[in-house]
Amino acid sequence: MPSLIIVGTVALDNIRTPFGEVRMALGGSAFYAGLSASYWTDVGIMGVVGTDYPEEGFRLLGAHGVDYRGIERSTEKTFSWTGEYTFDLNTAHTLKTDLNCLLSFNPDLPRVYDRCDTLFLANIDPDIQFRVLDTLPVRPSLVVCDTMNFWIENKLTELKRVLSRIDILTINEGEARMLSGQYSLVHAAREIARMGPKTLIVKRGEYGVLVFGKDSIFASPAYPLEEVKDPTGAGDSFAGGLIGYMTSQRKQSDEVLRQGIVIGSAMASFCVSDFSTRGLEGLTKKEIGNRLASFSSLTSYPGLPLLDAGTKG
Amino acid sequence: MPSLIIVGTVALDNIRTPFGEVRMALGGSAFYAGLSASYWTDVGIMGVVGTDYPEEGFRLLGAHGVDYRGIERSTEKTFSWTGEYTFDLNTAHTLKTDLNCLLSFNPDLPRVYDRCDTLFLANIDPDIQFRVLDTLPVRPSLVVCDTMNFWIENKLTELKRVLSRIDILTINEGEARMLSGQYSLVHAAREIARMGPKTLIVKRGEYGVLVFGKDSIFASPAYPLEEVKDPTGAGDSFAGGLIGYMTSQRKQSDEVLRQGIVIGSAMASFCVSDFSTRGLEGLTKKEIGNRLASFSSLTSYPGLPLLDAGTKG
Repeated sequence: MPSLIIVGTVALDNIRTPFGEVRMALGGSAFYAGLSASYWTDVGIMGVVGTDYPEEGFRLLGAHGVDYRGIERSTEKTFSWTGEYTFDLNTAHTLKTDLNCLLSFNPDLPRVYDRCDTLFLANIDPDIQFRVLDTLPVRPSLVVCDTMNFWIENKLTELKRVLSRIDILTINEGEARMLSGQYSLVHAAREIARMGPKTLIVKRGEYGVLVFGKDSIFASPAYPLEEVKDPTGAGDSFAGGLIGYMTSQRKQSDEVLRQGIVIGSAMASFCVSDFSTRGLEGLTKKEIGNRLASFSSLTSYPGLPLLDAGTKG
Repeated sequence: MPSLIIVGTVALDNIRTPFGEVRMALGGSAFYAGLSASYWTDVGIMGVVGTDYPEEGFRLLGAHGVDYRGIERSTEKTFSWTGEYTFDLNTAHTLKTDLNCLLSFNPDLPRVYDRCDTLFLANIDPDIQFRVLDTLPVRPSLVVCDTMNFWIENKLTELKRVLSRIDILTINEGEARMLSGQYSLVHAAREIARMGPKTLIVKRGEYGVLVFGKDSIFASPAYPLEEVKDPTGAGDSFAGGLIGYMTSQRKQSDEVLRQGIVIGSAMASFCVSDFSTRGLEGLTKKEIGNRLASFSSLTSYPGLPLLDAGTKG
């Protein structure tokens, strides 16, 4: 039984960026998150694919030790996202969304897994997120949820029902403002905490993340890469690394959360360095370790010996 | 003789934000930077004001121990900037710029000061920046320059002449891309280093700063305030705190630079918490110390005990 279960989309994406283009490429929120988390804990994925889904997708999950018994095979086509990015890689422009087999997806969680330590409700219809959470016989000790503007606009009631029962919400900056009706992120975090999640993680693309806990705020930058080739999946890889690491730790704390944020940021930096999931595939411990060391050097500074010594007069 | 000399504008600003409005308020690049730096070292300001400039401006500088003998009095009116911000406080919308006495400003530096440890060429016409730098009998050991899109667009040759002789350039994100012709900030930094400055500080408003040195990158967030009331002067206050602190240290190093960046960010957070220079006035050591402690908690995380232990398999 995997320690971490991830529910979300498994997709075939068509992506164009200033650096190239891929068609019918492996993707989806659960797929990215699962690969990323696989470096830190044992993962099972719940999702659905269609008749056009290539065996390569399963092979890749298998090679990373991801349990994919929870991926159903539909008789329709696989969910597909078509989008492009201009030089401002922070903004995805959706050209087309073909829901296909997602429309009739009704995950039967207990059929495959009946418990887990951690549940990640990756970006998908909040009705599906709720059903999975609701049908688990025992509530996992950590429940994390991701969502997007589309669900805030079109299924707010359903989304709020999910939020009332989770621990951590990851969401992007504009969506945090949309969901809370507050412009100041400090105010937005307070408002969203009232909806349920004790911890809010605000994703800011190339600017990193801001994490609002009960009594503390943590800021972590994105890794400044020479070139971001394809930002698709950055948020899912971030969440996968974060949640995978947290699941691997015996006790949850603000410290473990902060370490997880840095690990998630490192995993996201691998993801965006190449198209589709290529940047996330087959990473070595050494590569991950080096990236984490770079992250540490990116934000550390010597303690400030001031206040009496430093300030004048 | 002050250790740090700042050349730049002294202004009377008209500012409107969603949180209020001020008219003929104290401002200007040298004024903000001078107040901010005054908490860390002894400062002298070079600039010009007109007949309409209130005594209050000089009183405020005096109260902060800033030497203002370098501020000339013109028979014209004071330079004035009129601008507004919407809820996206990252972008200033200029409504009017009255150069007034700035047009004939020809600073006679050696008349007042003939040497300094550090020179800060705050945002002003690059011709003026160059003249000041060129007429100092001895080159200061640290020369920092700030500029803006207007000079990149209209006086690029003159600006490049300045850049070829400075140590550190502070510039905002869009301007770094404009000046270098590169979208990736890593590439932009490399390109700008070729123009002269060994260190590039990219200001990203509410997202903080990215600092590119010869062999290292440092990222520092902006302090997440409940409310930013008026972002005017944030960059100047940041630079003032940074440069003031660096000037107070006997030896320059990457460590001192990083500490200075955090101090500058703290000073900027005071600046934007109120209109005009109010947030920067009369701060106590305790207030500054508390803000620096909050900054430290904002970015610190426990070392990662992983790579063998943490990663799977």
